[in-house]
Amino acid sequence: MSLDLVALGEVMLRLDPGDARVRTARSFAVWEGGGEYNVARALRRCFGLSTGIVTALADNEVGRLVEDLILAGGVDTSLIRWLPYDGIGRTVRNGLNFVERGFGVRAPLGVSDRGNTAVAQLKPADVDFGALFATGVGGLHTGGILAGLSDTTPDLIETALYAAREHGVRTSYDLNYRPSLWHGRGGLTAAQAVNRRLLRGVDVVFGVPTADPVDVDSFAAHAERLAAEFPDLRVVATTLRHAYSANCHDWGAIAWRDGEVAVATHRERLAVLDRIGGGDGFASGFLYGLHQGLDLLSCVEYGAAHGALAMTTPGDTSMATLAEVRALAESGTGDVIR
Amino acid sequence: MSLDLVALGEVMLRLDPGDARVRTARSFAVWEGGGEYNVARALRRCFGLSTGIVTALADNEVGRLVEDLILAGGVDTSLIRWLPYDGIGRTVRNGLNFVERGFGVRAPLGVSDRGNTAVAQLKPADVDFGALFATGVGGLHTGGILAGLSDTTPDLIETALYAAREHGVRTSYDLNYRPSLWHGRGGLTAAQAVNRRLLRGVDVVFGVPTADPVDVDSFAAHAERLAAEFPDLRVVATTLRHAYSANCHDWGAIAWRDGEVAVATHRERLAVLDRIGGGDGFASGFLYGLHQGLDLLSCVEYGAAHGALAMTTPGDTSMATLAEVRALAESGTGDVIR
Amino acid sequence: MSLDLVALGEVMLRLDPGDARVRTARSFAVWEGGGEYNVARALRRCFGLSTGIVTALADNEVGRLVEDLILAGGVDTSLIRWLPYDGIGRTVRNGLNFVERGFGVRAPLGVSDRGNTAVAQLKPADVDFGALFATGVGGLHTGGILAGLSDTTPDLIETALYAAREHGVRTSYDLNYRPSLWHGRGGLTAAQAVNRRLLRGVDVVFGVPTADPVDVDSFAAHAERLAAEFPDLRVVATTLRHAYSANCHDWGAIAWRDGEVAVATHRERLAVLDRIGGGDGFASGFLYGLHQGLDLLSCVEYGAAHGALAMTTPGDTSMATLAEVRALAESGTGDVIR
Amino acid sequence: MSLDLVALGEVMLRLDPGDARVRTARSFAVWEGGGEYNVARALRRCFGLSTGIVTALADNEVGRLVEDLILAGGVDTSLIRWLPYDGIGRTVRNGLNFVERGFGVRAPLGVSDRGNTAVAQLKPADVDFGALFATGVGGLHTGGILAGLSDTTPDLIETALYAAREHGVRTSYDLNYRPSLWHGRGGLTAAQAVNRRLLRGVDVVFGVPTADPVDVDSFAAHAERLAAEFPDLRVVATTLRHAYSANCHDWGAIAWRDGEVAVATHRERLAVLDRIGGGDGFASGFLYGLHQGLDLLSCVEYGAAHGALAMTTPGDTSMATLAEVRALAESGTGDVIR
Amino acid sequence: MSLDLVALGEVMLRLDPGDARVRTARSFAVWEGGGEYNVARALRRCFGLSTGIVTALADNEVGRLVEDLILAGGVDTSLIRWLPYDGIGRTVRNGLNFVERGFGVRAPLGVSDRGNTAVAQLKPADVDFGALFATGVGGLHTGGILAGLSDTTPDLIETALYAAREHGVRTSYDLNYRPSLWHGRGGLTAAQAVNRRLLRGVDVVFGVPTADPVDVDSFAAHAERLAAEFPDLRVVATTLRHAYSANCHDWGAIAWRDGEVAVATHRERLAVLDRIGGGDGFASGFLYGLHQGLDLLSCVEYGAAHGALAMTTPGDTSMATLAEVRALAESGTGDVIR
Amino acid sequence: MSLDLVALGEVMLRLDPGDARVRTARSFAVWEGGGEYNVARALRRCFGLSTGIVTALADNEVGRLVEDLILAGGVDTSLIRWLPYDGIGRTVRNGLNFVERGFGVRAPLGVSDRGNTAVAQLKPADVDFGALFATGVGGLHTGGILAGLSDTTPDLIETALYAAREHGVRTSYDLNYRPSLWHGRGGLTAAQAVNRRLLRGVDVVFGVPTADPVDVDSFAAHAERLAAEFPDLRVVATTLRHAYSANCHDWGAIAWRDGEVAVATHRERLAVLDRIGGGDGFASGFLYGLHQGLDLLSCVEYGAAHGALAMTTPGDTSMATLAEVRALAESGTGDVIR
Repeated sequence: MSLDLVALGEVMLRLDPGDARVRTARSFAVWEGGGEYNVARALRRCFGLSTGIVTALADNEVGRLVEDLILAGGVDTSLIRWLPYDGIGRTVRNGLNFVERGFGVRAPLGVSDRGNTAVAQLKPADVDFGALFATGVGGLHTGGILAGLSDTTPDLIETALYAAREHGVRTSYDLNYRPSLWHGRGGLTAAQAVNRRLLRGVDVVFGVPTADPVDVDSFAAHAERLAAEFPDLRVVATTLRHAYSANCHDWGAIAWRDGEVAVATHRERLAVLDRIGGGDGFASGFLYGLHQGLDLLSCVEYGAAHGALAMTTPGDTSMATLAEVRALAESGTGDVIR
Repeated sequence: MSLDLVALGEVMLRLDPGDARVRTARSFAVWEGGGEYNVARALRRCFGLSTGIVTALADNEVGRLVEDLILAGGVDTSLIRWLPYDGIGRTVRNGLNFVERGFGVRAPLGVSDRGNTAVAQLKPADVDFGALFATGVGGLHTGGILAGLSDTTPDLIETALYAAREHGVRTSYDLNYRPSLWHGRGGLTAAQAVNRRLLRGVDVVFGVPTADPVDVDSFAAHAERLAAEFPDLRVVATTLRHAYSANCHDWGAIAWRDGEVAVATHRERLAVLDRIGGGDGFASGFLYGLHQGLDLLSCVEYGAAHGALAMTTPGDTSMATLAEVRALAESGTGDVIR
Repeated sequence: MSLDLVALGEVMLRLDPGDARVRTARSFAVWEGGGEYNVARALRRCFGLSTGIVTALADNEVGRLVEDLILAGGVDTSLIRWLPYDGIGRTVRNGLNFVERGFGVRAPLGVSDRGNTAVAQLKPADVDFGALFATGVGGLHTGGILAGLSDTTPDLIETALYAAREHGVRTSYDLNYRPSLWHGRGGLTAAQAVNRRLLRGVDVVFGVPTADPVDVDSFAAHAERLAAEFPDLRVVATTLRHAYSANCHDWGAIAWRDGEVAVATHRERLAVLDRIGGGDGFASGFLYGLHQGLDLLSCVEYGAAHGALAMTTPGDTSMATLAEVRALAESGTGDVIR
Repeated sequence: MSLDLVALGEVMLRLDPGDARVRTARSFAVWEGGGEYNVARALRRCFGLSTGIVTALADNEVGRLVEDLILAGGVDTSLIRWLPYDGIGRTVRNGLNFVERGFGVRAPLGVSDRGNTAVAQLKPADVDFGALFATGVGGLHTGGILAGLSDTTPDLIETALYAAREHGVRTSYDLNYRPSLWHGRGGLTAAQAVNRRLLRGVDVVFGVPTADPVDVDSFAAHAERLAAEFPDLRVVATTLRHAYSANCHDWGAIAWRDGEVAVATHRERLAVLDRIGGGDGFASGFLYGLHQGLDLLSCVEYGAAHGALAMTTPGDTSMATLAEVRALAESGTGDVIR
Repeated sequence: MSLDLVALGEVMLRLDPGDARVRTARSFAVWEGGGEYNVARALRRCFGLSTGIVTALADNEVGRLVEDLILAGGVDTSLIRWLPYDGIGRTVRNGLNFVERGFGVRAPLGVSDRGNTAVAQLKPADVDFGALFATGVGGLHTGGILAGLSDTTPDLIETALYAAREHGVRTSYDLNYRPSLWHGRGGLTAAQAVNRRLLRGVDVVFGVPTADPVDVDSFAAHAERLAAEFPDLRVVATTLRHAYSANCHDWGAIAWRDGEVAVATHRERLAVLDRIGGGDGFASGFLYGLHQGLDLLSCVEYGAAHGALAMTTPGDTSMATLAEVRALAESGTGDVIR
Repeated sequence: MSLDLVALGEVMLRLDPGDARVRTARSFAVWEGGGEYNVARALRRCFGLSTGIVTALADNEVGRLVEDLILAGGVDTSLIRWLPYDGIGRTVRNGLNFVERGFGVRAPLGVSDRGNTAVAQLKPADVDFGALFATGVGGLHTGGILAGLSDTTPDLIETALYAAREHGVRTSYDLNYRPSLWHGRGGLTAAQAVNRRLLRGVDVVFGVPTADPVDVDSFAAHAERLAAEFPDLRVVATTLRHAYSANCHDWGAIAWRDGEVAVATHRERLAVLDRIGGGDGFASGFLYGLHQGLDLLSCVEYGAAHGALAMTTPGDTSMATLAEVRALAESGTGDVIR
């Protein structure tokens, strides 16, 4: 096998009413998506790396549709755990995500229907991460969405991170705080506790909250504090976004590595078709940069450029090409602060 | 209010891939549907009666889409109980039904995703049936799908049937056995026990199993036995269907009332576009006949004609007009056996 | 110019809900169509003759859409009379035809919205038929739909027929009785009176009613009687159709010419997608045969084959090719009775 | 019944070519719409009030499609007067509105085809407004579009307004001058005469013309003059719009009540998908504010916010939610001038 | 790698106008397809084997779209040879296949646009079959379409077959004679000469012409003759099809192995949606049977059942599931003649 | 005939994935387009002149679809040369153009597949330009795309230009340099040599490269030099475009005639839906101005306005109306420099 990266997370069926609204739609386009998965998919289809997804699906027609979409995404499906379906969804389900993209003053709006899903029931013993990583996997990407799905998924992630550590696999984690996942379960405080526990095994963290507009010194100080608390942490990176409307954002990114800070080109009033997946687009472009051994500024530029392109197409996942990412990244005017 | 009929049951979002398959689809048309609801909708839109639906929905964008579809169905929405959504679907959901219509040797295929839905959580105390029926409701229609959703829905139905009895509301019940609902919960035996308990309060029963081809004497004998066991039972009716392929069925119906048996026109090799909802089409046409005080043969002819028309359009629910039903029913060659 | 055929009649915008119903549709495909026009269009696009349409349209966006469709139909648009639109449709309109194709026991159903249209207001003085026919037009095709549109259209047709007679232009007329056009205006009796008046100038008549099944001798006798009454009448032709369902028809045709009767291949249980335009398909194939100087049997075979093919595609107008018509016509088993 | 508001006006079928043009379209999405009706629909579906529509439709498939759409709009259909169709549309029709939304420098463009419609033929005696208002209706909304449809509709409106007055029903009227309706019938002068006659019975008037940019003092002076002329008039409100292109407008609103003037947040370069219905969106949001007893500034903010949201979706009618309107209205920076 | 089967052939982009015609279409759905490839795809997606495709594509957006479709097909893409595109298609192209499915008397019709494609330029030296087969490939499937593409493809196939022989890889070959490929290049005679040359290295041959209706003895005698001429040939199999119309076929299959003949269930008047790919469906089902070591009758039943199911969905490739194939195959009434 | 203008060039089938990407599309809308043809089509459908196209097509279903689209374009099809198709596309093909429109930072992207097309094989002897122009044609429009298709097309163009000269037909030529056409054939240098040879017979040249921003004096000087080199050259005109993103361009135009320079209104940040065909839109509007004898400023204003409108609709060709062009042109603020 020897995959360049394995993602660990849920893959949902995205149901997209196009330029209509969920609540009045009469048809939906479908895509697949998931915060962790989107990174693996983009690394495969845009950036040409080999990737896989560790997840679970209920074995019914919807699960097979998700598989069909993952196959088109080029992501290895052999690590998917298929759970038998009970015919009605009492015991296990597949995640669904009804999301409309918004327009102008009307913000994107969605409803995820992901209770009781197959992946939320995954337990550490269900996946032999040791065997997986022994095949020579290059990286493991996971994050706070998976961590918030159930009470068992943090254990699953922890097991994966420790196995990765043992096999020298680079680990990345996107904080991705989603209030709905923690509603009634302790909220942000509980999420932070879980993240804190898991960050101990992480090399690269995405999604650290920042001020708007960002202050480079504050960001650097925050990153230093994180690095002090989590000694394995080498890289802290995040996108910078200001949404004027659903279709018009200021867009950039910033990253810290070992004392160095790089700020990607600040793109003003970027035209956005569907913002879902922009952050994952950043993470995948950034990880591609790391994989290629690029300097930190190139990493943030590739990440920001890819995230910008990912928001020009419908669906959660990127349809950009490496040539497009490279051209956009290299036309940038980012900066490095040492 | 004074509705002609109230249905009690779940309303799901039907996701329909048209002439494609669920597992390879890239878009879905949406409709609403539910065995009990379909009867109320058809009585309203095709037959011109006033109807309502007693059900529950989770208050999210999907639930509001179902409401949008029910409104178009003309069915009173004021009896819907809205449950707050938790943002993820752990505690309550809306039912989804991914179904493809099949073609030729490829049978219709679906997967219902209705675990943990709002309606499955309805309890007798949640609905004041007494107050509802006191407004002068003409009929109550419910059935075995709702009864199979959870351990509490039989109690709900029983409460409704008793309240109907008290207020002189005619009650009808469609057996509608669905193996998936009873899988792991006792199967057919358990379903039959529940049905047996509930039939005590029922005037009209639909969906009694019959041989193929039907034997009038056996059917009559079976109906007599049911009437003996359930003294309130006045009418036993069911469709007769033989499917040569997804698109070609023999189609008819038979009914018993107080010793009389009527057999609807036998339609050979009927062209079928989407068979989902054919049985509900029969029930609604039949109930219309009862409501209008038609003779038994007219009731089965209206039911069979409406069921046949309901299968000529996509979606679970009928798009037929009363004029079409009447013309088709009256062109029939059914028979009465006394 | 020197067109092979000019049609005189209305061109409507057909609004087609596909496999849905008009009353529940959320979108419509649009086509153009009209009984007389369809013949000109098919002679141009399928049979390769040059044709034009004498008609009138209100000059608004809908009229321009109809023009766009006529252009695609290859029919000369220079003979269209454009009337100024009043912005609301009080004084003049374009004809609209909302028609669904039906399925199985559900018959095709439509509603034409063609009151007060531009063409219904055409008067004899509006068209210089003499000048038109002096350019060397080969044939004039018109019929009973146009004749029924208003009180002035019979005069228009009569003027055209007389001018055709003077210039040696072959004239054909499709009776095409539509009850809605004559409702409240004298019904069938009035229509027949108008047809009788107009048939005096006609060479070829289509759409003569026949028994089902047809009796060759009776048909011949009927044709002889017509020829006796209208001495110019040389050809009497009509389709033979028995509809088992919306999608399954027996289909054939019969024609008389100067004492000879030809019966086209009888096609049993022909698969029909959209029956609208089948009769016009026959007329155009038949007229092509006359134009090419084929024998009577070939004329009916070309007509019947083209009509059969025209019903395999959506829309009112034919999408068949001459090669397909020829192959189907020549595979036939029709017969000539002398 | 006891509806919160009844609208009096026409409901047309909107035929929408999406991002194509009417004149080259091959398909149309359909919506329902009408200046007066849109207000009732939004008050029901966005704002949760109960509403009905007093109108007339021809009883054919198109009329039934309009009914299907009105049902989805949640608006009570029991007040619709159905006129028998003649099969062709000579005597009565349903209104159609072919409208494209425009893009950039290409302006929205439409053609309404509403001559001779059922509602244009409504006469005072056709509706028993006294009985209707006696059921406890909260408000009556009508306007200048209906008034311009025919010579009888002003009488109809006047009758309704007087009956409303008698029963203490609040009345609102949107001037909505449409040149096409008055073309050849006296133009703006005639329209103003009718409006002047009808405003005598009106409490709230929308659509008063203003300068661009608006001058608060002039507006106030104009409102005072109207109030002096029409003593019952309590509120004068209007939207402020400057269109840079089809998709980019400055948008705001202003209102006067009893000497107080409130100006809604001025939104610059608002992204617009389909501007049709923006003004009706304002009226419904404003009336919601009045119904809830909000202060004047809140009324204009709710109106302007709802109008802005209504222009972010296709179709004439709003798909916004109350939560969205509230959030947008409350984020505003409007002002009150006393 | 160790793939269960590798196909060698072209993958084209299928452009499908749905129920419209190519010559009047305004939109096309796209699928991928190719006689040899379809077998690999079905073995992967329906039957669960691992498969790959040896082919070549021009590296442009169309080629990448084909790759996207192949990925969804689950077929290994690592064996695709990508040729640089010249920006215009003078030197190398990707194959396109515009095909409409037909309806009733209107036959399916297509036009392949595959001149000068990448795969037609493949030469023996371009693929290291020895290295490929050394990885443990189970089977090689190729056929007469590839052989007819250019003057070099027979050499390519011969090289592949010899390499397969050396590595003990089972070889199958579908004769698939397409007149257009041999037009102007020697026609059927030339095709037969190439086939004869290539059959020397083949174990299983599909597509041998048979009489309609088939005569078992003649078929057996023909197979014996082939086996005598090509000593390696172990299996001769073919479908039996009689098309009454585009949508209605009699369908069956017959096979010979080592003196035994098996005849699959004869399915009369099978409903067909899109016949393209039916024969490839048979080959893949049959090869699955061989791979599983089933008896000859089961092989033909699986093949015929899968072919029947493949024709119930749009596109060239199968969307059937193994469960459906098994159920249909086992419901059959085929026979073995020894 | 007596056409106002004849275009000489290729007509391709444009395959348009809408707001998706070619490489991930599952359906394509189709349009026809070609740099030279687009001018003829717009002059016919927007500006009302009579036009024709001299081109060649392979006679297969794709060619007939292109013909269907040209007919809708109103352009005379009698000058199309139909070449027999070989069934596979080895010897002759029709041009295809897969182009996506881009969004924001994602640029439009396409791949033309036009190698070996029918028009690239046209030779001077294939068209009798003398006879054509003798019918009284007003203008000939051709350009550098056709010139780049093959080694024979420059000869074809030269022949046409000389014949035009002889018959007093005005000639226009759009340089339209496309690198892909000249890749491997000498690149820009070769293209310029061909253009230089052909400009000798040209009256009006479009597409002369300019600086961004343009300098009027430099442009004038460049035009003077061209006029000196090519004495017949009377007019030099070109568009001025600066693309901020796929959907937002600055847009203008400039032209020189006999020492006079006119600069069209500079439109900043014009909203662009699909930029393909904008330049051809300019050329057609400009030529309309020349045809009407307008002054130079009006010509550039009509050209720039029409080009701007042409980019507000999907497809290569304009859907604008003359009324819209006139209104936009006349609202301009262009200038004349003498």
